[in-house]
Amino acid sequence: MIITMKKLAPQEEIDRMVQSIELKGLHVTMISGTDYNVFGVVGDTTILDDRKLSASPYVDNVQRVSAPYKLANRVFHPADTVVDVSGVKVGGSEPIVVMGGPCSIESESHTDEMARLVGEAGGRIFRGGAYKPRTSPYAFQGLGSEGIRYMAVAGKKYGLPIVSELMSIDKLDEFVENVDLIQIGARNMQNFDLLKEVGKTKKPVLLKRGLANTIEEWLMSAEYIMAGGNENVILCERGIRTFEKYTRNTLDLSVVPIVKQRSHLPIVIDPSHATGDRKLVEAMSLAAIAAGADGLIIETHCDPPHALSDGAQCLYPSQFAFLIEKGREIARVVGRDL
Amino acid sequence: MIITMKKLAPQEEIDRMVQSIELKGLHVTMISGTDYNVFGVVGDTTILDDRKLSASPYVDNVQRVSAPYKLANRVFHPADTVVDVSGVKVGGSEPIVVMGGPCSIESESHTDEMARLVGEAGGRIFRGGAYKPRTSPYAFQGLGSEGIRYMAVAGKKYGLPIVSELMSIDKLDEFVENVDLIQIGARNMQNFDLLKEVGKTKKPVLLKRGLANTIEEWLMSAEYIMAGGNENVILCERGIRTFEKYTRNTLDLSVVPIVKQRSHLPIVIDPSHATGDRKLVEAMSLAAIAAGADGLIIETHCDPPHALSDGAQCLYPSQFAFLIEKGREIARVVGRDL
Amino acid sequence: MIITMKKLAPQEEIDRMVQSIELKGLHVTMISGTDYNVFGVVGDTTILDDRKLSASPYVDNVQRVSAPYKLANRVFHPADTVVDVSGVKVGGSEPIVVMGGPCSIESESHTDEMARLVGEAGGRIFRGGAYKPRTSPYAFQGLGSEGIRYMAVAGKKYGLPIVSELMSIDKLDEFVENVDLIQIGARNMQNFDLLKEVGKTKKPVLLKRGLANTIEEWLMSAEYIMAGGNENVILCERGIRTFEKYTRNTLDLSVVPIVKQRSHLPIVIDPSHATGDRKLVEAMSLAAIAAGADGLIIETHCDPPHALSDGAQCLYPSQFAFLIEKGREIARVVGRDL
Amino acid sequence: MIITMKKLAPQEEIDRMVQSIELKGLHVTMISGTDYNVFGVVGDTTILDDRKLSASPYVDNVQRVSAPYKLANRVFHPADTVVDVSGVKVGGSEPIVVMGGPCSIESESHTDEMARLVGEAGGRIFRGGAYKPRTSPYAFQGLGSEGIRYMAVAGKKYGLPIVSELMSIDKLDEFVENVDLIQIGARNMQNFDLLKEVGKTKKPVLLKRGLANTIEEWLMSAEYIMAGGNENVILCERGIRTFEKYTRNTLDLSVVPIVKQRSHLPIVIDPSHATGDRKLVEAMSLAAIAAGADGLIIETHCDPPHALSDGAQCLYPSQFAFLIEKGREIARVVGRDL
Repeated sequence: MIITMKKLAPQEEIDRMVQSIELKGLHVTMISGTDYNVFGVVGDTTILDDRKLSASPYVDNVQRVSAPYKLANRVFHPADTVVDVSGVKVGGSEPIVVMGGPCSIESESHTDEMARLVGEAGGRIFRGGAYKPRTSPYAFQGLGSEGIRYMAVAGKKYGLPIVSELMSIDKLDEFVENVDLIQIGARNMQNFDLLKEVGKTKKPVLLKRGLANTIEEWLMSAEYIMAGGNENVILCERGIRTFEKYTRNTLDLSVVPIVKQRSHLPIVIDPSHATGDRKLVEAMSLAAIAAGADGLIIETHCDPPHALSDGAQCLYPSQFAFLIEKGREIARVVGRDL
Repeated sequence: MIITMKKLAPQEEIDRMVQSIELKGLHVTMISGTDYNVFGVVGDTTILDDRKLSASPYVDNVQRVSAPYKLANRVFHPADTVVDVSGVKVGGSEPIVVMGGPCSIESESHTDEMARLVGEAGGRIFRGGAYKPRTSPYAFQGLGSEGIRYMAVAGKKYGLPIVSELMSIDKLDEFVENVDLIQIGARNMQNFDLLKEVGKTKKPVLLKRGLANTIEEWLMSAEYIMAGGNENVILCERGIRTFEKYTRNTLDLSVVPIVKQRSHLPIVIDPSHATGDRKLVEAMSLAAIAAGADGLIIETHCDPPHALSDGAQCLYPSQFAFLIEKGREIARVVGRDL
Repeated sequence: MIITMKKLAPQEEIDRMVQSIELKGLHVTMISGTDYNVFGVVGDTTILDDRKLSASPYVDNVQRVSAPYKLANRVFHPADTVVDVSGVKVGGSEPIVVMGGPCSIESESHTDEMARLVGEAGGRIFRGGAYKPRTSPYAFQGLGSEGIRYMAVAGKKYGLPIVSELMSIDKLDEFVENVDLIQIGARNMQNFDLLKEVGKTKKPVLLKRGLANTIEEWLMSAEYIMAGGNENVILCERGIRTFEKYTRNTLDLSVVPIVKQRSHLPIVIDPSHATGDRKLVEAMSLAAIAAGADGLIIETHCDPPHALSDGAQCLYPSQFAFLIEKGREIARVVGRDL
Repeated sequence: MIITMKKLAPQEEIDRMVQSIELKGLHVTMISGTDYNVFGVVGDTTILDDRKLSASPYVDNVQRVSAPYKLANRVFHPADTVVDVSGVKVGGSEPIVVMGGPCSIESESHTDEMARLVGEAGGRIFRGGAYKPRTSPYAFQGLGSEGIRYMAVAGKKYGLPIVSELMSIDKLDEFVENVDLIQIGARNMQNFDLLKEVGKTKKPVLLKRGLANTIEEWLMSAEYIMAGGNENVILCERGIRTFEKYTRNTLDLSVVPIVKQRSHLPIVIDPSHATGDRKLVEAMSLAAIAAGADGLIIETHCDPPHALSDGAQCLYPSQFAFLIEKGREIARVVGRDL
């Protein structure tokens, strides 16, 4: 960490700052600038709060050299983490995992049909929304517990672990009992109370990147979960918010090699929410695999125009199956199974 | 609402869509385009889900003409809403309200001192964080209930209603009992479960705009609270995320006249979090008042360099007092008291 | 095009607007809204200026249904455009073209060596910067004409057409004579005078997307060139500006399927400038091919750490060659040669 | 400047980098990190190219402590620059200058009328577009030289210096002769050839911030002009591009205090282009004055609905006059005349 103090900082202020840092077991080296006083801090700087250091009127700025996350950092954990989702392994050199299913769970028979179709096509985890984060209070909010129950039944029947979004702490027990992979949605990526609670379980967590969150903040949210004792975190990119209007969000595929370099956690791509448009999903899915992703999570529906939510981005089942076939060929080129 | 269907859409698909909309009591008018089939939908379109309509492979796009919010919409409620925060009125032609206090509540004596300083300077609501949303799990997380208690005591002593951030539903009772104005933070602007719960109370709510949320989404979140029966919503802008690096966020002051035109709800500006830099707070506060804001929420601390969080953006008490004086003069020019 | 007028708009204002549009040969249909007067405009709306229509105080908003570009629009030109760059064909079902070379041209011998290496590795167009857009006036500004000469000599020797960036109209003759593919850089994407001038030539143009430009604005800039009579436009995505800090820019790969759907022009990806980091280039290149790109433009240098500019994003020649090999395998999966 | 090298960097690579920097007359200090080798560079680091230093595979990152601009930097030029625009002084403690006029120059009589109205209302510089940067090749492109002539005549008649946008080097002589303040538009902020050419004149320059450019890049573009010998640069903020859709751009008013702190150059605000909506212009103008701006540039038109361009954001003359009156009162509160 590099701290730059103003040239006019009185010596006693400088001494006070240096001492407060050294008291925490870190070392401070001075580099005497011509226009500034610059200090280097060596040691475990994750325990320092940069905004607190910046508070002194004599401090010009504070810059980190090493990342503020530790448990999620590949520097300290060189080996890939492989997360076991009720038997389906995600990450490392394991086969690429495709998760599929409808945006919203709609009925028991529909859920059964969708799980069957996903499994037949080669999907290995069944996704579906029972509690739905909707921008409008007047939109369909999901079937809730009933939806979770339909998913759990269908998942067992077809041998597919299930993933669904948890929005609120008071449903945590229900999810721990019935869901194999707990999704934390983009809007809750910095709902720190929720992160802390899932961190106390051992359940695998699919942590979506927030719409306007940096990769560093995303890894810090993973760190929250891991700091609680739960290291089973899978990261999921689902597009970020930009000025572009032809897509719902902008899919940032560069996260794949970046996450692989900076972290040991698995990384999965969600091209459905990222693009918001089924016509773009196949191209972005193949691109994600070529880039080295550990998995995909894709919306598919047997009748997209009549889906209860987000039908515009749902693949028809035949498109879903075709995508997996094509994806398998791309996977082979980059040395992975699917 | 305008729905554009592809030229090649079969007549039966067109009929089906038109019928499904008319069944909801809306009227559909056709405009026959040269390259598209364009339909206009007339009536209460807030009940339609644009993403669901877009799901048909024959639909090219769906555009709203009128806003998707109703209760928060000035069109249907021309008169300004004035929110009464335990006696302090915010909005309409009421005097501009300055809310002040430290980022984090630190101790009982410090809280008492800060409340006294805020009141003496002309602040009318006392702010402070007891539950803190921190990016790092290793940073100070706030005093919790203890902090709320210190605030409640100090607020009563100096006659200042208090505002503090609620992060989790399980603390709602504590807030309803002890806090005068419940803050929903930027990271929770789309924590819909939380919005629904505060919507069931009658407590005034300070709803911060999310870092990457449009004004429309912000008003939709207000709509969530109001749809539950709680119309006491005050909007608060605290900066949005952009590419600029010299400020923590970019303060979007144009929200002031926009919110005034589109909604009847009061609008308050938080220049401390928006800029992240105390050297910018005075200029942005005066600008906010000149733009027509109904209030300000400002961080102030008796010893910013030793504040437990966000000291870099805290004003010294003398700066806070000076700002109120200057702000009062600007307020007069735009026809308001302060 | 849909025009929404306020409910209180006087009839004479409505009539005036309708007439002014009909005078241009377009048809106007009215849809009587409950809260607004909404009109649909049918015909060639590219000749209407939406901002001019919005100028009336009685107009609430103006929304386009069809795109504002015509020559670049696939609706009116269903067949893929294939651009012939001095014998190397780009677009349609032609083999994917890899363009390679250093960021800056440095010396005659170095240019010769780089062209040889690019050709040997399978690159088919030689890239290099002679006139350099640099953020700092104190940074190396390129060799200018001398650099163009070196490139032209080396390109001929190794049978590679050359591409280089044109920054100013006064160098246009030099480029028309010596360069096979004229690059318009991201910073000049809306330098309309420059676009008009290259539009008067028949030279192929590589039009980079501006850092903060929408796909629609990009296609409008292509339209500028095409409206002048030059239809040899190749689009090039090189990353957009977002809040993310771990990459120089955010590569928006979704442009590949979007451009293919909306336009008939070829689309090429520049992963070097998009990421700014050589460690990310291979993954993003393979992803671009999987997504369906018609080509890649990649920086490579025989000694990146001593490159005169942008060494951090340059591939070593062996990396460049390896990338082409891998890329060829991916290309085959998506049905293309390389 | 702080350079972080990987722990595994061989000593000879480290030595080579240190030597190359010391050869330029700078000093290098080492801070031995636990996980990295960190170096501090002291001296005039504006001559170093950070991207070139990052090129070594052993360098992890490079961070600047001091700004990369020198001539525009207040550290080296503490006194405010006051730019004299043919007698009208802008900056320092001079009265706030309001520039007004139509978006596009339309005819001789209209120009005369507009200049008269601007002068009568208290505007002190007359603005107008003769060469127009339009997104669409099919939109009105301006009257060109004829428009400049109309402006020059009207400006002289009413004693108002004139400001207009220069888009291309080949019109520079025309502008030097006829225009008092040369505007460099947002789209050309990084048209470095154009910046260099205006840098060779002594004409005052109004440098608009690019739509997606950081304040640092903006000051670097000012540096380009100043490095050529022309120190008469006025900065102009006109909104940046964000995800928000209710405004054309997002006006970033925090630039006012930031520019005042980091630079000595005057700063002017353009609320018309920033918001794109006349209903927001007054509020944003008053806010800009309250924030400390040195001037405003505002579009006004005697008949906005029939303006040839951008009528939606043009004020009616009475609104323009009212704004100046109100602005004068705000100016007084912040200690300035207008």
